[in-house]
Amino acid sequence: MASSIFFTDYASHSTAVRLLPLRRRHHHHHVGPTFRHFTLHSSPSLVVPVAAMTTKASAMVIDGKSVAKQIRDEITAEVSRMKEAIGVTPGLAVILVGDRKDSATYVRNKKKACESVGINSLEANLAEDSTEQEVLNHIADFNDDPSVHGILVQLPLPSHMDEQNILNAVRIENDVDGFHPLNIGRLAMRGREPLFVPCTPKGCIELLHRYGVPIKGKRAVVIGRSNIVGMPAALLLQREDATVSIVHSKTSNPEEITRQADIIISAVGQPNMVRGSWIKPGAVIIDVGINPVEDPNSPRGYRLVGDVCYEEASKVASAITPVPGGVGPMTIAMLLQNTLLSAMRIHNFE
Amino acid sequence: MASSIFFTDYASHSTAVRLLPLRRRHHHHHVGPTFRHFTLHSSPSLVVPVAAMTTKASAMVIDGKSVAKQIRDEITAEVSRMKEAIGVTPGLAVILVGDRKDSATYVRNKKKACESVGINSLEANLAEDSTEQEVLNHIADFNDDPSVHGILVQLPLPSHMDEQNILNAVRIENDVDGFHPLNIGRLAMRGREPLFVPCTPKGCIELLHRYGVPIKGKRAVVIGRSNIVGMPAALLLQREDATVSIVHSKTSNPEEITRQADIIISAVGQPNMVRGSWIKPGAVIIDVGINPVEDPNSPRGYRLVGDVCYEEASKVASAITPVPGGVGPMTIAMLLQNTLLSAMRIHNFE
Repeated sequence: MASSIFFTDYASHSTAVRLLPLRRRHHHHHVGPTFRHFTLHSSPSLVVPVAAMTTKASAMVIDGKSVAKQIRDEITAEVSRMKEAIGVTPGLAVILVGDRKDSATYVRNKKKACESVGINSLEANLAEDSTEQEVLNHIADFNDDPSVHGILVQLPLPSHMDEQNILNAVRIENDVDGFHPLNIGRLAMRGREPLFVPCTPKGCIELLHRYGVPIKGKRAVVIGRSNIVGMPAALLLQREDATVSIVHSKTSNPEEITRQADIIISAVGQPNMVRGSWIKPGAVIIDVGINPVEDPNSPRGYRLVGDVCYEEASKVASAITPVPGGVGPMTIAMLLQNTLLSAMRIHNFE
Repeated sequence: MASSIFFTDYASHSTAVRLLPLRRRHHHHHVGPTFRHFTLHSSPSLVVPVAAMTTKASAMVIDGKSVAKQIRDEITAEVSRMKEAIGVTPGLAVILVGDRKDSATYVRNKKKACESVGINSLEANLAEDSTEQEVLNHIADFNDDPSVHGILVQLPLPSHMDEQNILNAVRIENDVDGFHPLNIGRLAMRGREPLFVPCTPKGCIELLHRYGVPIKGKRAVVIGRSNIVGMPAALLLQREDATVSIVHSKTSNPEEITRQADIIISAVGQPNMVRGSWIKPGAVIIDVGINPVEDPNSPRGYRLVGDVCYEEASKVASAITPVPGGVGPMTIAMLLQNTLLSAMRIHNFE
């Protein structure tokens, strides 16, 4: 239910803004040979792939921006089909408390994204010194509003409020963030289906699907075990029959374990933590981290990098998401998809 | 909420009763040297332990029967303390539908175990041809009965009933089996606490704790991903900061992955599947499987073995649970503990 689903939310998890001696990244689309290599290469451990043998070789770029665009187009078509068929427009309500600049930006982006696909967006802006009861009242109103199919409470909330109490007030049928423990429990259990899958991990798996990356029977390593990305990503990979290991801050040999993975999903918020040496030749890398590092050449004084050292990784992996332009755009596309799914479910529209 | 928590429940998962050429197992308690070796040996991969170098060496036996006895004694003391202080006796209600012999045995064992620690046991026995509504009515009665703190529905239910519907009717505060998705979700999430931890995986971790096995930072492999054992066991190990991998039927190299583990929890229901070669020298093994194999020398025509080939494993591991007498007795002890905890929580007694 929380809405820490935008990229710079992760930036706040990184302990320090570090300056690393990275050269400019190369996003060459060696789509032909690299992709061919990857799809044919079902046992990457047996053969050293081309990408690992030459320094010029470069992993295929998993273009989240373009996939997200494609998904938004699909959503636009579905929204319009539903509107025509039953006269219902999906609605997303966002509750913003206080006047944090970053939170205001996220909310604005969500509204814009809704508009771009034809989803109605509603907003409640409450003052920083509002009472918890006032927030709860707004949630209750949205819960009862038939034009609302998804409700997000923008985090963080002011410190005088009980976050868990407020998030639990969102009706589970409207919890498009998918963070309710009931949803997470269903995600973990075989034979159960969650009402909503959390947006960022759902976006990671969607990228794997759209690029035809096989998951079943593959070794997958998830780096990070947060409630909003790492843990649900591991549960999703397991639902798809991957053999999953979760690496975290208490893991004594993260490099050794990560090197066994056919698929790596990293979500820790540590710039360039995953080096080339951590990666098995031919692995596929989904980099969720979006971390600011100092960059005097940038107009803002910093630029964004992932958890994975892209320059090194792209020489070893068969495919990798860039940062930005990888997982980031997928998160909001999945939020729109969850809102659409919610409206379709509530109105029994297929 | 289901109650498939007794050993022979697992037997039903095994695809075939196989006869394996096993000699009699040796449960020698080499407690002195083996245990000393184990506790000192925090990095078992660096040194080949004594146990692996000699054929005579034998892993310490993790005596679940004795630990369960100790826990039942602790529960007895707590139950009596609560009775004296506030006049409340914990109560466990079991609902049995139909007349399956095995189910009747489990229910009888649960009743006996309750009696032995001073917990009240209530029972509802319904005919095989009862309606779903009749079962729901009994659950509703138990939900409203202030003398009931835990409710179990003995599985399997007759095929004309919707199991999920019935299990969901048990109030979460009474779900001493801990299988409700809301509980599983809380188990998976950092910063959340489940109301109840499922009995069998809780028993596994309790054995590790009582034998002083370090978990934090260790590699743990869980074999099997069932809702009632494997999956919650993995979540519990992760809560204790182990680095967890889950191996299952779709895993392509289970032996290789299992051999990396400092701690192995196996719950698949395949007799003797985990061989000595799967085990890292010095690993600790918790064997949840209880599988019948043909044995003409046994009066019943079969005997019970674990998922782990005990004879081979005990030469490599530093500690191992026997079958029977390992995890089995712990499950019912944890059920009693959950019932006690429920009564203490409901009555705010510490």
